[in-house]
Order: sequence, then structure tokens, then C-alpha cells
Amino acid sequence: MWWKVLIGSLGGAAVLTVGILLGHYAIDKGSPAPSWLPDVSRDLDESLLQDFMDAVDNKKIEGFLRDLTKVPHMATSAGDEATVEYMMQHWNDQESGLDQAWRQNYVVYLSFPDPKKPNKVTVVAPNTTVLHTAREREKSYGPDQDDPEVVQPYAAYSPAGSPQGKLVYANQGKPSDYMLLNKTLDLRGTIAICRYGGAGRAEKAINAAPYGVVGVLVYSDPLDINDGLMSDSNETYPHSWYMPPSGVERGSFNTDYGDLLTPYLAAKESTYRIPVENITGIPPIPIQPIGFEDAYVLISQLGGESAPANWQGGFNCTYNYGGPGFKPASQFSNSDVKLEVFNFAKLKNSSNVMGIIRGSVEPDRYVIYGNHRDSWVHGAIDPSSGTSVMLEVTRVLGRLLKQGRWRPRRSIIFGSWGAEEFGLIGSTEYTEQYYTKLSERTVAYINVDIAVFANATLRASGMPSVQNLIFTAAKQVKAPGLESTSVYDNWLRYSNRTSPAYGTVPRVGYLTGAGSDYAAFVHYLGITAMDFSYTYDRTKTKARIYPAYHTAYDTFDYASRYIDPGFTSHQAVARTAGNVLLRLADSLLLPLNVSDYAETLEAYLATALELHQGSAAPPQIAPLKVRRINDQLMLMDRAFLDPQAFPEKHVIWASSSSGHATFPGFADAFARASLSGLEGDWFRVHHQISILSQAINGAAHMLMDGP
Amino acid sequence: MWWKVLIGSLGGAAVLTVGILLGHYAIDKGSPAPSWLPDVSRDLDESLLQDFMDAVDNKKIEGFLRDLTKVPHMATSAGDEATVEYMMQHWNDQESGLDQAWRQNYVVYLSFPDPKKPNKVTVVAPNTTVLHTAREREKSYGPDQDDPEVVQPYAAYSPAGSPQGKLVYANQGKPSDYMLLNKTLDLRGTIAICRYGGAGRAEKAINAAPYGVVGVLVYSDPLDINDGLMSDSNETYPHSWYMPPSGVERGSFNTDYGDLLTPYLAAKESTYRIPVENITGIPPIPIQPIGFEDAYVLISQLGGESAPANWQGGFNCTYNYGGPGFKPASQFSNSDVKLEVFNFAKLKNSSNVMGIIRGSVEPDRYVIYGNHRDSWVHGAIDPSSGTSVMLEVTRVLGRLLKQGRWRPRRSIIFGSWGAEEFGLIGSTEYTEQYYTKLSERTVAYINVDIAVFANATLRASGMPSVQNLIFTAAKQVKAPGLESTSVYDNWLRYSNRTSPAYGTVPRVGYLTGAGSDYAAFVHYLGITAMDFSYTYDRTKTKARIYPAYHTAYDTFDYASRYIDPGFTSHQAVARTAGNVLLRLADSLLLPLNVSDYAETLEAYLATALELHQGSAAPPQIAPLKVRRINDQLMLMDRAFLDPQAFPEKHVIWASSSSGHATFPGFADAFARASLSGLEGDWFRVHHQISILSQAINGAAHMLMDGP
Repeated sequence: MWWKVLIGSLGGAAVLTVGILLGHYAIDKGSPAPSWLPDVSRDLDESLLQDFMDAVDNKKIEGFLRDLTKVPHMATSAGDEATVEYMMQHWNDQESGLDQAWRQNYVVYLSFPDPKKPNKVTVVAPNTTVLHTAREREKSYGPDQDDPEVVQPYAAYSPAGSPQGKLVYANQGKPSDYMLLNKTLDLRGTIAICRYGGAGRAEKAINAAPYGVVGVLVYSDPLDINDGLMSDSNETYPHSWYMPPSGVERGSFNTDYGDLLTPYLAAKESTYRIPVENITGIPPIPIQPIGFEDAYVLISQLGGESAPANWQGGFNCTYNYGGPGFKPASQFSNSDVKLEVFNFAKLKNSSNVMGIIRGSVEPDRYVIYGNHRDSWVHGAIDPSSGTSVMLEVTRVLGRLLKQGRWRPRRSIIFGSWGAEEFGLIGSTEYTEQYYTKLSERTVAYINVDIAVFANATLRASGMPSVQNLIFTAAKQVKAPGLESTSVYDNWLRYSNRTSPAYGTVPRVGYLTGAGSDYAAFVHYLGITAMDFSYTYDRTKTKARIYPAYHTAYDTFDYASRYIDPGFTSHQAVARTAGNVLLRLADSLLLPLNVSDYAETLEAYLATALELHQGSAAPPQIAPLKVRRINDQLMLMDRAFLDPQAFPEKHVIWASSSSGHATFPGFADAFARASLSGLEGDWFRVHHQISILSQAINGAAHMLMDGP
Repeated sequence: MWWKVLIGSLGGAAVLTVGILLGHYAIDKGSPAPSWLPDVSRDLDESLLQDFMDAVDNKKIEGFLRDLTKVPHMATSAGDEATVEYMMQHWNDQESGLDQAWRQNYVVYLSFPDPKKPNKVTVVAPNTTVLHTAREREKSYGPDQDDPEVVQPYAAYSPAGSPQGKLVYANQGKPSDYMLLNKTLDLRGTIAICRYGGAGRAEKAINAAPYGVVGVLVYSDPLDINDGLMSDSNETYPHSWYMPPSGVERGSFNTDYGDLLTPYLAAKESTYRIPVENITGIPPIPIQPIGFEDAYVLISQLGGESAPANWQGGFNCTYNYGGPGFKPASQFSNSDVKLEVFNFAKLKNSSNVMGIIRGSVEPDRYVIYGNHRDSWVHGAIDPSSGTSVMLEVTRVLGRLLKQGRWRPRRSIIFGSWGAEEFGLIGSTEYTEQYYTKLSERTVAYINVDIAVFANATLRASGMPSVQNLIFTAAKQVKAPGLESTSVYDNWLRYSNRTSPAYGTVPRVGYLTGAGSDYAAFVHYLGITAMDFSYTYDRTKTKARIYPAYHTAYDTFDYASRYIDPGFTSHQAVARTAGNVLLRLADSLLLPLNVSDYAETLEAYLATALELHQGSAAPPQIAPLKVRRINDQLMLMDRAFLDPQAFPEKHVIWASSSSGHATFPGFADAFARASLSGLEGDWFRVHHQISILSQAINGAAHMLMDGP
């Protein structure tokens, strides 16, 4: 009944009836300084900040991680529910909890394999004999892999279906890969096998379908994930951090983020849902991931011409295109590959756990710190390394709070997001539900998803305006295992760049695309955001990501033996992110540096000129002194939102296929127009320039008082 | 060259390089109250407010009006340019000017008749003899009508063309009118004549075209505009305020507002413009307005069946549908009506004149007061009555400012908008150019377009949250000609309603639709807005609007003799609007009352229940005390914006065809679904409820500190 929903929602309008707190403002003139003045003018307390960092305990982080990873905790599973309760218990703790903690439920559209009818991949001879069956579960090396709650490897949001056809090898499944393959072969009715990397998961199937491909297999090639190693007798986990031959990266196969049935609306029970057939950005044909041990069996027997050099992977065989199908001389001669995918979609209750420490002076300004809680299996690294770090940050801040030693100037909100793995769902629904409020009040968003990929160096990404803030924090934290070196100095050795203003500085990455829960904050709300982790020494590994990513081997055992023995990198991330958090919450003037934004825009322009014009040095921009106040700083990023863009509104950080750090909408429009030469496409370039020009001027105007 | 534009726009990024004003915040703790404290905590000064009102001078307003209406000042004409200079001169005056005044140009798409080939309407016999030619200019009663700069009556944005066909009478040109007419007649190839009213100007042609109508005439029926009077020998102007028989209402014939070629972008010279053929919401067939003296000649000779009673107008004849065409026995038997429209469109420079009085304490909070400057002809009432009021408000405030007696707490911005008559263009381009800044900082927008329609009573419209503010001001102003009665008490007699909270109060209208320059502030930015004027005694006239509206008779002579002799109603509007302006600019706590918003939402719900459900009293909403601070009040309306709605985003004040004061998107979706019964339409109802529910909850959340 529509009116019940509406009456329910008008309950919310009850708070529109407000009392007046005039007394709060009644001030006798000429009297001595009012009692609230010292509070209002108090700045960040550096000694308290030091106390915070000293108290961050690697052993506590280890304990949190051990607790969180006892069982698999995929979104909405019993294990996930246990982590909800674990967060609630810690955030409500009398001695080290927050002011308040609560759970917030959404009814979201998820996709699962059928435990009673596992997905199958087989090689089927012309006489229907099954010649080979791929593993349905990953190989066990201990009790973690034996847990019955380990979900079968699958591609979430793949449609169900049983396509069968001749196999072809499609490299990474990029548009250019299928285009090249299609020049050699008729792809109609084939099954394509791709390696992970180069294109988004769903795109490997979306790019294939127009050529008539009927099903897709995907696997992690040892070249991309294992630095070429592949023997589980001595080279891979449990002997090292490398992926065992049966390991399979699970994942969400969709290109849009947020609940797929409720775009722009929070997925509450009563919310309108679009028809399932209107969902966009998911695979149109069945797709299934397999381990490289099975991929080897298939690829090593493929017929046809040999694929180009940059398509060759780590197997000791030539990667052929496929005949299509297998070599006539092989055991699979003339056989098909058959996928049987029984995935089904279901509306499920997913929870965010939210917590708050209320601000003393500006309770209605928020610094938000978030991490997702759900994993694919045990998720020791993804995401529980980050969850453990967040729990340690809240434990230390909670103790300072409960002891009466500290209360932040601004409110701090913590978000333990649900269902991130299915497409950043918990964080996106939260931003949709509180769109205006968060947009008007949020100072910044800090994301720590995977806290530790490896223990070599800090990795930080964010808007250019937070670069200095991150540097300040990183200089105050000791690098793990290097007592006399700061995280900053260590970072500088691993990854740096030359800034016109500062000389050589560590390289802060950009938050483009939708890699973790910062996406809705950046692209939908236009909030200044950043993301922290510890990461690889790239001289030692070329792995796409840590090799146990999204497999049943991402366990406490793996994390504590191979990723961060002693948990000191976790500790360094907790100290750095916590330091940044305290600076944002307690500084009188927000520690955001707008001139660094200008530097990036100039670099973007230089790149645009270089790519698309070929001459003309970027213009020199004269400095201009303007008043700098917190609201202006906080809200400047909002001015970069194009109100009509869809679905990514931020004109600087939107995704781009250009592959260059330059204005994304403009670069993409330019590339398209250059290719097509169509007048209409050149008009779109002009349109993009107008949007960009208006946004940059709008952001500049946010820094002036006058109209 | 794209890169020149981009480099130019990056000049704006120069201000991204900012200095730090830390000293501004350095406060010694324990010292006596800092010197800025009295300023920061100063509230509205009631005695200064009284001084302001006393100083508002009806003679000055009369003088401004006389100056402004010397010549026609249609947008971008020489007369318009003279008014730009007039505003600049007054706002830059050393003794009574503002802090700063400047002009802001946009390059906008306008439509004009061709002075060398005037538009023609003729009756053409089968043998091509012209039997009747409608007047091309309005009849002169004095030098104002003789001015060569008086623009020929025309329908701006009508396409050029020379359609010819049998005449039919289509009442008001509503969809239902054409539907009924089409049941009786084959409308293909006909010319329709409609009276003004009932449907938007452009809609009369847009609604006609699908039936095959090839041209449209429109006129003001004496019943609708003149209370039935029509003789210029003793009944109409110059003998009274009524429209002479040759009077023609000009107007902009478009349904969207803002520059038609640059949606969502400010129309600067370099801005991308959509192709002209992509413009929506303008007449697809030629349309031309004529006087009722010519309309009578045509309608009185129409053949066919007599139209229904509610289609009959004020002429002393039966209004027939048309045969189609004229009565066989009439002089026009078998003749066609022919339109010759030579309108052309052109990009023209249009200026806003902007002025500012900078705030002392919160310079980056804006109260904006606006009025458009352009008219169709002399525009004494529309808009110069409002321009004169604005000039008097700025004169009095400017004197207080220059004398050092006053500076507002918040900045006051004045906007003298250009090209309003062509579709609210100046104000819309301004909101597009400064979208984020205005959205984040504007406290409220005050619009005074036509200041005085008639001299009986105040008319005020606005968001419910400004009701109390308007009442407070109206109680402090004396009603013109009634020394012991306030504007409030006088208003209460003319127009009132019963409020559950307050009993009988004057009726404040809602700012739905796009009637004047508040539209972009309300629908695009979600800013609290209001509109003021003095208006009719409805027991004395039923005129749709003051009869000289958009004609060559809207002159100083007309205004001073028939609308407001003595200019005391102008004075009352200046005092009331100025009082509201000062309260918004100077009050410590913003004088916005959120509980009145809740009352309106409950009334909307009650109407929705009554219309669409038939039972269930609206729910009782318990009061809840929450902190009330200015930002929360200021920004609450923003939460009612649906970020994906297009083009009107405000979910409470968007236009609706329901004709009831209830949730517009929901009511329209419900009406559509009820008619069609289609499942897809009922899904849209559900979608609207979800949008509404999220917006109301979002607004409620804006009034709480926590997340």
C-alpha cells in the first residue's frame, strides 16, 4: 500500500518540528571571554596525537584478525552476521567503545552459486563422454579450506546456463583482444578462456557476447599472479605467498556499483526496484572462474595459430588461439568445453555497522572512516586486515574518550560496510540514503580496505588537497622494522615523483574508478577522500595483486606467515590513518591544501596539451591570495561535480579509458572524435570542455567570499 | 581552439593557490572577550530596521519608474542597455550605492519579429482576395505607443512560416480542448484560434500539432482580461485600466527556462551549444497573438456547431467550433485564415547587473534579492514596478552603508536579471554558472518581479519555512491608505486560511512552476525562496492578470493613473520585502521556521490520501526537539532535491498537472497509472514514493547533528 510507505516516511518529518535553542546564543556583551571560547578555538593537540600512536598495538591487531577470520564471512552469511556482532560488541564496549554504535540494514540483490548443484566445467567428447572435469573446490592444505562454508569459486551475477562449444583463447578479454581473435576465427558458438587482468571481470563476458561467444572461462595466469611459479610441491602456498594451482579468484562480475535494483535510492525493504531485466553492466552470457591447473589442461591442448607474444602467459606451452577447439592430435581432439552455471540471485539483508564519536565544537561536521566487513572466504587480507586496523584505531580512540581525556572537535563516523564484494553496496546505499546531509557536512572520507598487501612501503591515494596532510602524518610514524626511518622516508625510496612546488616527494595515487568504498563518496557526493595500505616492493614481485586474493587461501595463517609477520605493517597503517583522522577531526583549520589541487590540474592540462595539441607549454598561473576557511576547503570538491553526469559526476576523477592522467571526460570525447571524425563527436568534445571549464571556475569560486 | 578555452578557464584555477590566514584565528586563552565577539554575536537591530522602513520614499519610487519607462526596453535593445547603465550608476553612487556593482554578460538565444517584414494575419477568399487584415501594431493613445521601438506583437520562439487553412475555435488550447474539437471536426490543415489562459503559451501550439493543425492564433478574451468590457470609446484604456481592443499580450512561447541552447551550462561566448533542431518545448507550428478586436471579427463569423458553455467568452456572439471555417452566410464564407510569421532567432548579448553589500561576520553567506530588468515594451508594471522598488531598497540601504551606520551580518547580493521575458534566462544562467557556490552558501532568495498588480492587498508566496518571517515583516508595515491597519491585518481580510498550529492566518502561496526568476533558485538549486507583490481585490475583478500586461499600454501613465496612484503600494512592497531582507541578513539565528514545513507536508499527505485512497486521517506527528542551527535551516531545502530529476528537481515544488497541492511527482504518476492501468505505470508510482520518502527523510536528517 503506497500510503503506508509514505506515512512511514513522514514519520521522519516529525523532526521537522523543532525547538529553539536561543539560550545557547545569548551572550552578555562586554563580559569576560565566555566559557565556550577556549573550546571553540582549541587546535589539534600534538601530544595527544603522540599518545594515540604509541598506544596502537600490533598484538591487538593480530588478535582482532584471528577472531575475525575463524570462519568464512561472505556477505549475509552466518559468518558475516558473527562479524556484525563482533563489531557491535567492540564499539559498545564500556572502556574502549564509541559514543554510539548501530546496525543499518539494506535489502540488496546478490548472486550465489547453488550448493546443491555446483557449477561445472567439463571437456565433452563428440560421443558425449566427459574427458575432463575442472575442480569444483580448491585443494585443501588445512582446516580452513575444509570449512563447509567455503563458497564454491564462481562469478557473481553471471547468468545461469549451460553453454557448450569449441574453446578459444582470448588473452585478457579486452575489446581489442576479441577484435583480433575475430579476424582469425569465427567466434560464433565458442567458449572463450581469458586470463584475469587488463579488463574488468564483467567486461570479459560483455566484450565477448557481440561476437557470438556463448560462454567464458577466466583464470589467474601464473605469469600475472605468481611471478611464473606454479608447483605446489615447493613453490606455492603453503610454501610461500603464491597461489596454489587450484586457487581461484572469486569476484563480483558487474560494472556499476551499489545495489543493482535501486539506483540512486537506498535499498530499503519498501524501496522501488527496477525490473531485473533492466539491470545493466552484468555478463550477458555465463562465465565461470577456474584454477590455473585446469586452465593449463585446456590451454596447452588448444589448436589453431599461435597467439601473439603479448598474449603468452606463464605456462610451458605456446598459447594458441584455438582452432577453434583443441589440436587434432590432442586427447581432446574435436571435443567441446561445457559450462554449467547454476548461479541464482536473491534479495538478502545486508548490514552496515555504524559508530560515532560526537564532536564537541562542530558535531555537525563529519570525518568518516570506513572499511568493508564482508569477504569472499576467510578474507584475512581482504578485508579483515583493514577491519582489524579499524578496530585498533577505535579501541585506542575509545579509551581516550571513555577516560575523559579527549573528544574530537568534529564528529567522527566509522562505517563497517556490508556487501562490498558484490559491488560496494553497503557504502553506496549509505551515501544514497543520506545524500544531501553527507554532501553538506562531510569534511573527508578515509578508506582502509586491504590494510596490508605486503610489508614494504606505504601506499596512499587521494585528492591532491590531502597530499600534505598524508605527508605530515607519514613523517610522524616509524617504518616497520626500521627504527630510525619514517614511513615517509621509506615511501620516498619506493615511489616518488618530482613536484614543481616541493621537489622530490612520495607519489600519492589518484582515486579514479571504483576500486573500493571511496567510490560513492568521490563520484556521487564529491567528498575529499583517501585510501591507505602497506604494499609491495615492486622490484621483488610483479604479481597483479597478492596471490591469495579472493581465494580460500586468504587466511590468518597466510597473513601471519607471508604478508605481515609480527603485524607491524598493520600497526604502521593504523598509526598513519589514525594520525590523518585526528588531524582532520581536531585541527582548527582543516589541513587541506588547495594549491596542490592546482598543481594537479596544471599537470592534467599539460598532458592534455601534449596528447591532443602537441605544442604550447601550460600557462603560468599567478598566485592570488584569498581567504581560506574550512567550509570553502571542505566544499571545493563538490564544485567539480557535473550535476547531469551519469553515473560518475566528478569531472576530474571519473573513470577514463584514455590511460593518461588528464581530464577524463574530455580525453575520452577527444579520443572518440579523433577516431570517428564525426561532427557530432567533435560537438561532444566542445560540450566536455564547457562542462570542465564551468566546474574548474566553480571550484575556484568556492574559495572566494563574494559572488 | 579547445585548448584556448581550457587555458582560459584554468585562469580561474589561479585562485586555488591560497594564502593562510592563521592569524585571524590566533586567540589568547584566558584573555578578556576578544574584540570580534560583540560583532559575531550581534543580532538584528530593530531600530535600524525601523529607520530603513521610514526612509522608503514613494516619491523616489515614482521617480525611478518615470526614468526606467521613458522608452521601451526589451531584452538586448538599446533601451535595455540604457537601463543597465541606469542600474550601474545608482549602485555605484558615492552616497547611496552598494559596495560593488558589475555587469555580467551571457550570449543567449532570442527570437524576434522582422521589422522589415511584419508578421501578418489575413482572411483570404478562395479567389485569393484579402478580405480582412489584422492590425500589425496596437492603436495609439499617446506618444508611448508611437515610439518606433515598440516591438510588433509576436510569439517569441514561434517558427517562421505561412500556414493557411480553415479556422476553428479551440477554447484555451488545452489537450482536452483539442481532444474534444477533434471528435467533431477533422483538424488537419486548419488554423486554430485560442484564448489566453488555461494552458501555457507554447502548449497551445504544442497540443495542436499532433492533430494536424498548421497554425495557431491566440488572443485575450474580454471575459478573461477585461471583466467583459470592450469599448475603447469609454470602457478601456485610456479611460480605465482595461485592455483596449487592439491590445495584444506578447510573450515567450517556450516551456523550459534558461537559455535554450546551453542547458545546465552558463551561456558564455565559448560555451558549447546544442544544435537548434534539438531544442525542445517550443511551438512546432507558427503561432501569432492578435487583439480581441480582430479575434471578434474572426470568431463571430465562425460556422459549425456551437461550442460548450465553458468555451464561451465575452463577445456578443455564440462561439462556434468552426465548420471548419466561416459560416456559409458570412462575408468570409469559404475563406481561409492565413498566418505569415517572419520571426527569426539570434544569439544576443544579455546582461545581468549584479551588486553586493558585503557581510561583516559571515561574508560567505548570501541573501539574494532579484528582479528582472527587461520588459516587452515600456514595462511600467512588468518589471519596472519591481525594479523601482529594488532601486529604492538599495538606495536606502546604500545610504545607511555609506554613512557607516550599518553593515549586514551576511552578504546581500542584488540581481537585476536580463532576458527574463524570454524564459528566465539571466537568473538561470547565473545559477548555472555558480551552481555549487550558490547552493552551498545562499540563505534565501527574494524575488520582486511585478511589484504592484493592483493596490488592494499584499500577495506573498514562498516555502512554508518563511511564512512566519513574512508575517513578522507584514505586521510592521502600514497598509497603504489605512494608517491604523497593518499590511498583515489588511492581507488577512483578503486572503486567509486556517492553520492547525496558528488558527486563521493570511494565505502564503506556493512557488510551484516557473512564473518568475525564483524558478532556478527553487527547482535547480533547492534554495528557500519567496516572491512579493501588491495585488487585486478579487471581489472587484476577475481579470487573469492586470489588463495591460505585455502590451504597449503598460506605461508610466497607466501605472500612475490606474495601478498605484501615489505609489504607496510600491512603498508597502519595498518596506515589506526590505524588512524580510534585513531579517535574513542580520538575524543571529536565521528566521526560518521548520515546523511550518511539516504542516505543509502533512496537508500534502492529507490531500494525497483524500484523492488517492479515500480514507485514513493523516497520521499525528509527535513533536521532537532538535538542535536548530542556521546551516541546518538553510540547507534543509536542498535535501528535497532529487539528484536525478530533470529538469525540475525539487520533489515538493515541481510542477504538477494534478491541480492539487500535493506531492507533484507522485500525484502525476498516480493519475497516469490510474488512467492506463499499466503495470509499468504503477511501478513508476512506487518509484515516485521511494524518491519522495528518501527526500523527506533526508530533509528531516538535515535537522540532526548526528549521521
